[in-house]
Amino acid sequence: MMNVPFRVTSMLEHAERYFAKKEVTSRTMSGIRKFSYREIGERTRRLSSALKRLGVQKGERVGTLAWNHHRHLEAYFAIPGVEAVLHTINIRLSPQHIAYIINHADDQILFVDQDILPLVEALKDHIPNVKAYILMTDEDELPQSPLQPLYHYEKLLETGDPAYEFPQDIDENDPVGMCYTSATTGNPKGVTYTHRSTVLHSMSLGLADGGSVSESDVLMPVVPMFHVNAWGLPYAATWFGSSQVMPGPRFTPQLLAELIEMEKVTFAAGVPTIWMGLLQELEQNSYDTSSLRAVICGGSAAPKGMIKTFEEKHNIPFMHAYGMTETSPLVIATRLKTYQADLDDEAKFDYKAKQGYVVQGVEMKVIGANGEVKWDGHEMGELLLRSNWIADEYYNDDRTEGTFNDGWLHTGDVVTVDEEGFVKIVDRTKDLIKSGGEWISSVDLENAIMAFPDVFEASVIAVPHPEWQERPLACVVLKPEAKGKVPKEDIVEFLRPQFAKWWIPDDIMFMDEIPKTSVGKFLKRTLRDQLKDHYMTTAKS
Amino acid sequence: MMNVPFRVTSMLEHAERYFAKKEVTSRTMSGIRKFSYREIGERTRRLSSALKRLGVQKGERVGTLAWNHHRHLEAYFAIPGVEAVLHTINIRLSPQHIAYIINHADDQILFVDQDILPLVEALKDHIPNVKAYILMTDEDELPQSPLQPLYHYEKLLETGDPAYEFPQDIDENDPVGMCYTSATTGNPKGVTYTHRSTVLHSMSLGLADGGSVSESDVLMPVVPMFHVNAWGLPYAATWFGSSQVMPGPRFTPQLLAELIEMEKVTFAAGVPTIWMGLLQELEQNSYDTSSLRAVICGGSAAPKGMIKTFEEKHNIPFMHAYGMTETSPLVIATRLKTYQADLDDEAKFDYKAKQGYVVQGVEMKVIGANGEVKWDGHEMGELLLRSNWIADEYYNDDRTEGTFNDGWLHTGDVVTVDEEGFVKIVDRTKDLIKSGGEWISSVDLENAIMAFPDVFEASVIAVPHPEWQERPLACVVLKPEAKGKVPKEDIVEFLRPQFAKWWIPDDIMFMDEIPKTSVGKFLKRTLRDQLKDHYMTTAKS
Repeated sequence: MMNVPFRVTSMLEHAERYFAKKEVTSRTMSGIRKFSYREIGERTRRLSSALKRLGVQKGERVGTLAWNHHRHLEAYFAIPGVEAVLHTINIRLSPQHIAYIINHADDQILFVDQDILPLVEALKDHIPNVKAYILMTDEDELPQSPLQPLYHYEKLLETGDPAYEFPQDIDENDPVGMCYTSATTGNPKGVTYTHRSTVLHSMSLGLADGGSVSESDVLMPVVPMFHVNAWGLPYAATWFGSSQVMPGPRFTPQLLAELIEMEKVTFAAGVPTIWMGLLQELEQNSYDTSSLRAVICGGSAAPKGMIKTFEEKHNIPFMHAYGMTETSPLVIATRLKTYQADLDDEAKFDYKAKQGYVVQGVEMKVIGANGEVKWDGHEMGELLLRSNWIADEYYNDDRTEGTFNDGWLHTGDVVTVDEEGFVKIVDRTKDLIKSGGEWISSVDLENAIMAFPDVFEASVIAVPHPEWQERPLACVVLKPEAKGKVPKEDIVEFLRPQFAKWWIPDDIMFMDEIPKTSVGKFLKRTLRDQLKDHYMTTAKS
Repeated sequence: MMNVPFRVTSMLEHAERYFAKKEVTSRTMSGIRKFSYREIGERTRRLSSALKRLGVQKGERVGTLAWNHHRHLEAYFAIPGVEAVLHTINIRLSPQHIAYIINHADDQILFVDQDILPLVEALKDHIPNVKAYILMTDEDELPQSPLQPLYHYEKLLETGDPAYEFPQDIDENDPVGMCYTSATTGNPKGVTYTHRSTVLHSMSLGLADGGSVSESDVLMPVVPMFHVNAWGLPYAATWFGSSQVMPGPRFTPQLLAELIEMEKVTFAAGVPTIWMGLLQELEQNSYDTSSLRAVICGGSAAPKGMIKTFEEKHNIPFMHAYGMTETSPLVIATRLKTYQADLDDEAKFDYKAKQGYVVQGVEMKVIGANGEVKWDGHEMGELLLRSNWIADEYYNDDRTEGTFNDGWLHTGDVVTVDEEGFVKIVDRTKDLIKSGGEWISSVDLENAIMAFPDVFEASVIAVPHPEWQERPLACVVLKPEAKGKVPKEDIVEFLRPQFAKWWIPDDIMFMDEIPKTSVGKFLKRTLRDQLKDHYMTTAKS
């Protein structure tokens, strides 16, 4: 059989040949415009040729700090088009981390959006290896800037060759893209994608039982193109000839709702926060969202209530998915099986609130305290994954060990698997409570405690215990009006009917607030440090 | 990124894990039974383990002479499951050719269906290298047979290990399957598929814009499993967890219609003859075919009239596809683009009567007299194809040269391409008429002449010409009642308004019959030999 190397630019070539008239709707600082794939193709070839002239070499990293728009899409193909590596930079990271990853990736050139320019200017002295900047701007002229040399994107395109030919004879295992993922401690960790992984991941997005991306779609990636390649959707949408809607910089829920109605979006992708915002907008104002065949939601778990509201109230099918930077990201998604159509609604939503089962091309195993777990929906274990679109290392990083072992990605997510193969995330391995050889999910306990009417928030942590190795300790913040009025026993009694006896926290600590990270996540590590002697000094209740 | 080798058996493993309850409906000599993928998986593992015990070695060929049923499906996975090569043998070939390919492939073991046993027994003395036979039978006991040793399929399974583990650490470029394709002259030519090509081809069948094979499908491959792996559908259907309906030996149109109604088939695949037969059955008797989301048709061109009848009269979407043994086979299929929805019905059927455009993962170019042809729907050229699921050689055969050149498959099909990229087959290269540097399609002329009321059949051939290199000559058989009553000029006048002047045949030869092959195709080679001096000796008209 022929061995034709998988090649990212072949996906754009396909769109140019077979979907030349289909369009990308792009919102930038100055408004909304449309570009056909013929135009995108020509502009991308110009950009590749210009990058070549700027001296970009094979294998070099070129960074982007940009929103979702047509220019970013062009960079997605033009940088691989000179055999360089597209490094999309998450502009939401701290300036220190942004500088770190630019230096760690050794980016040679940076593409920057107009409104992100100040951020990069502030970093200027910390990223000495960057040789040039390219401003993605709608303005005719460049602003004054200390960044030098600074090129004007559109003027650069004018110097490029619209008939530039993408290299055909490449190695499919060559790097083509790069993203960094934030770590619990320390600097972000880099993942390098290859032509092979990117094309195969795109193919999985086109599977009828994967993302089902197709020519008939109008696809709106709300998830940022600086976040895991907008889940690979810009690549897949281009290859399959979907119309694309790029919502651009600093969009609002109102804008998303307007774009859905105006452009007749069929498929949109984003994290739970985005969909929560859209729901609020749909409550307040009336939009025609009937074109939507699905919204896909990943990044973190979507609450069942939100899924129900989408499906029951707004008649918008909701697809729950799971992935991470290390997995390209799509590896698991919820699709009910045909014979599950007979279930009652509540049971269906229970399945939809799980992360789902692996897409074709991905293998999983779940390792608990005693080897592979039973698929009973109860036994917990760490989720391990293997696929051609999963990383096998962090880029130049000694944290590779511990995550990538024996050919499997150790996700750090603790899950259960039910009889149908549906995965449900119950905890992070580091937050799991290991009590007397059994595992207890801190997340399940937290959710239960937070359902207690007087509780404002709660975090359950593992605390060392002389007899049981670890036992759960609940840290609880009461609502202001309830402070000092709720006995611990009330909360314990509230939990008893819901959990096995040995799951119930041995103690409850009331506190004024739970320490949090800058993005609002519980800093369990801090709590654990503060309370590590709690059960060593108190009697077991 | 991880490099996980593509592996045919991984598709069955996926079905066992995630679609264990889904079923394969199998019709054999003794009736219809259902098997879950859990059972198919276990039986396949038993078979692999039994083959191993019989001494089958890595890379050895194991042949099958069998219809579409569950046992053949098991062999599809069990033979690759011991790293051997599944060689499906077309039982419709002549006995001489069947013996040739068994010997040429050097098959070590043959799986044989009960009703095909006499055919193989007759070949016995001509296939001395076959070491064992396995009878796929529903009977409890083996029949008397000169084939020795002859194993009973079900009893062999009983000796096998249901927990046999398929090899995981293979080379994705290892051979896994083999089919022979008949040649115009000489013996059939063999094509060897690899794990990589088979899995990628299966993936293309799962693309929403490919075959869209999905868990929600009830898939009936009518195309035989001994013909290009039933177009790869048994593999894809298993991987994607579709229910499968295997119509078994010597089915009738009535049986197909009954299966469609009874099993609520959603997707069925076959050649035009099959669909013509089904149409006739649907005319005569009433069936509920509303479950069908599509029938897919390949092998040879489907007439526009048939496509219209399926869609307009029976409300069954009809998908025209193109492929060959050398291409796994799916490479081109007709899917209207969203903006073509505005066309009038006649224009839509014109597109649907074309072969379509390439699926993602396949590249094409069309080379005419002056290089790549214009995509104008008129200029003709030979169709060249490239893909990871296209062969790069014939197995141990010096006919490789001429078909596989410069990394492309030269299909021998002459096509036009329209502005939308839709390919339409107009001729075979060897039947094309090359007149004064321009190309004339013999097929177009034949179709036009056969539309003349008094014509029974017609074949147009290229005949050497002193001035124009070649000119068309029409060989025409009139209907019995018209014999001797139709002047040549009437046919010529009939053609004039339909073609450019230089397309009109210079002469028309009336004859009593047109020589044909055993399967009813025109033997143009014989005609050309007989008439090669026609224009050398007669004046140009």
